[in-house]
Amino acid sequence: MKALVYTGVEELEFRDVADPTPADDHHLIRIDSVGICGSDMHAYLGHDERRPAPLILGHEGAGKIVGGPRDGERVTINPLVSDPTSAASLSGRENLCPSRQIISMPPREGAFAQYVPMLGRNLVTVPDHVSFDQAALAEPMAVSWHSARLGMAALHEADPRKALVIGGGAIGLAAALALKAMGCEEVIVAEPNAARRSYLELHCDMETVAAAAEPAPLVVDAVGYAATRKLASALATPGGVIVHIGLGEDDGGLDIRRMTLQEITFIGTYTYTAQDFRDTCAAMFDGRLGALDWTETRPLSEGAAAFADIRAGRVPAPKIILKP
Amino acid sequence: MKALVYTGVEELEFRDVADPTPADDHHLIRIDSVGICGSDMHAYLGHDERRPAPLILGHEGAGKIVGGPRDGERVTINPLVSDPTSAASLSGRENLCPSRQIISMPPREGAFAQYVPMLGRNLVTVPDHVSFDQAALAEPMAVSWHSARLGMAALHEADPRKALVIGGGAIGLAAALALKAMGCEEVIVAEPNAARRSYLELHCDMETVAAAAEPAPLVVDAVGYAATRKLASALATPGGVIVHIGLGEDDGGLDIRRMTLQEITFIGTYTYTAQDFRDTCAAMFDGRLGALDWTETRPLSEGAAAFADIRAGRVPAPKIILKP
Repeated sequence: MKALVYTGVEELEFRDVADPTPADDHHLIRIDSVGICGSDMHAYLGHDERRPAPLILGHEGAGKIVGGPRDGERVTINPLVSDPTSAASLSGRENLCPSRQIISMPPREGAFAQYVPMLGRNLVTVPDHVSFDQAALAEPMAVSWHSARLGMAALHEADPRKALVIGGGAIGLAAALALKAMGCEEVIVAEPNAARRSYLELHCDMETVAAAAEPAPLVVDAVGYAATRKLASALATPGGVIVHIGLGEDDGGLDIRRMTLQEITFIGTYTYTAQDFRDTCAAMFDGRLGALDWTETRPLSEGAAAFADIRAGRVPAPKIILKP
Repeated sequence: MKALVYTGVEELEFRDVADPTPADDHHLIRIDSVGICGSDMHAYLGHDERRPAPLILGHEGAGKIVGGPRDGERVTINPLVSDPTSAASLSGRENLCPSRQIISMPPREGAFAQYVPMLGRNLVTVPDHVSFDQAALAEPMAVSWHSARLGMAALHEADPRKALVIGGGAIGLAAALALKAMGCEEVIVAEPNAARRSYLELHCDMETVAAAAEPAPLVVDAVGYAATRKLASALATPGGVIVHIGLGEDDGGLDIRRMTLQEITFIGTYTYTAQDFRDTCAAMFDGRLGALDWTETRPLSEGAAAFADIRAGRVPAPKIILKP
């Protein structure tokens, strides 16, 4: 099959690779749409030791099952594989399972390819009125849904349902959409890139600012750098909550003195539970998360150029979908 | 009256000062017992810009009301004065009131003195079977009670009720006692000082370790230094909770990468709500927080020596109570 292979720092090759041979309990999915994630970019820049070259990246895939009893079924892939018998999974927190795996990280190759094998329980059926490009958004939407759910649950009952989202990429936009779907009345997205900001305003009906300045009881850091954590811990109101997605930089930024004196809660969040993934799909499929049309589509064969364009800040849309 | 006055870095003078003149809505309390807190030590070392010399420190006081309609009533003092009409106070979070004041911080002098004025609503009546030395522990116990309450509430329902408390001073011990009172089944206190550790084991029936190594779903950082936060974020189990009390150092220590990948929650905590203070007193008075006999008593006139002894690590008991 053809695949986009990460071969070294800032190097991607579209080339022939061996077809995957799914294990007995796996289905084979022919990928129709697969999104580029910030963590793919992170790996591409050589910043993720968990993803050594050569490797097929990509974990936001949707397509059709090929062969077997579910042949022809349209599905979107939950790429997080956990051990259903672990204590974490049994408590409904598959994302904390110590043996968790994710496609695009060894030993599992990713979805920037024509085919990916996956367990049946990780496949969510996609109704006909939802396109594969939309269905491929399930994974990043689930990341943000999970984070929004934890943040809303931690918010004090007396605080206004008001959120600041730092970062207007797919995760930030998805967090804003999830928060609105969960009843958050006011959501502002802070995004420095003017073209992206304009896209979010005009195309996604989002309220945006170039630089966050107004405090909010719930702050979503959808960037994960020291500078964004500094901003988050300065702008969370007393008794407020920061939810932190992403691994831009490992350390620094939090104003722990203020977080202590003003009782700010910081919640690290990673991926989603299996239930979050299903709930996100349900919300996407019934329209609660909007039109899901904020993607730009390119052939997988031009994946390398897409990475370069994202890195250079030349892509107004929050998400590029590659088509194998 | 006589008072112990902080006059400059590492300087305390026991001397005559003007008697306080309570405002119409205040009672005058003749202090019988007043504890030395870590934050008094912090100020004494010149590390707290909120407490400039000259100042009477001390905010853990108990004694008798002198004069007025409640003359002779035995009380313990909630030293945190907030505006009852603020949004924070109306939501039951007086500790987050933007105009909060605390005795021992300007404009309010502290309780290392013969008398302190205080609003009636901040005074909790002490029953006769509780000594003033015990009653003076209400304030630090309330700090820890509040923190334990927030930590237990944030703990995932599937996680074992098991806690690591970093620091075996009064706040750490009180947190351990509060956690046990709240149903935490296993509590281990990490404390490097061998004399203190022995005191906690033999006198307070606490399980202690010199250096924490065993992970726990709930970690109380009752020290608040970069090194203790580093330990806390290394030892909280996936999905676990860190509650952070104290302001030893403002920055550093948290392993944000791990907290994100393993979904660790960090909760900054400061003082207590008015309800927490009352709940703590009720738990103390009915015996749920143990014998409350882990104090050493000294005359207020020898306060300077007590500070020096604590600083030198020469005090096995977690709390020194001064007697004006």
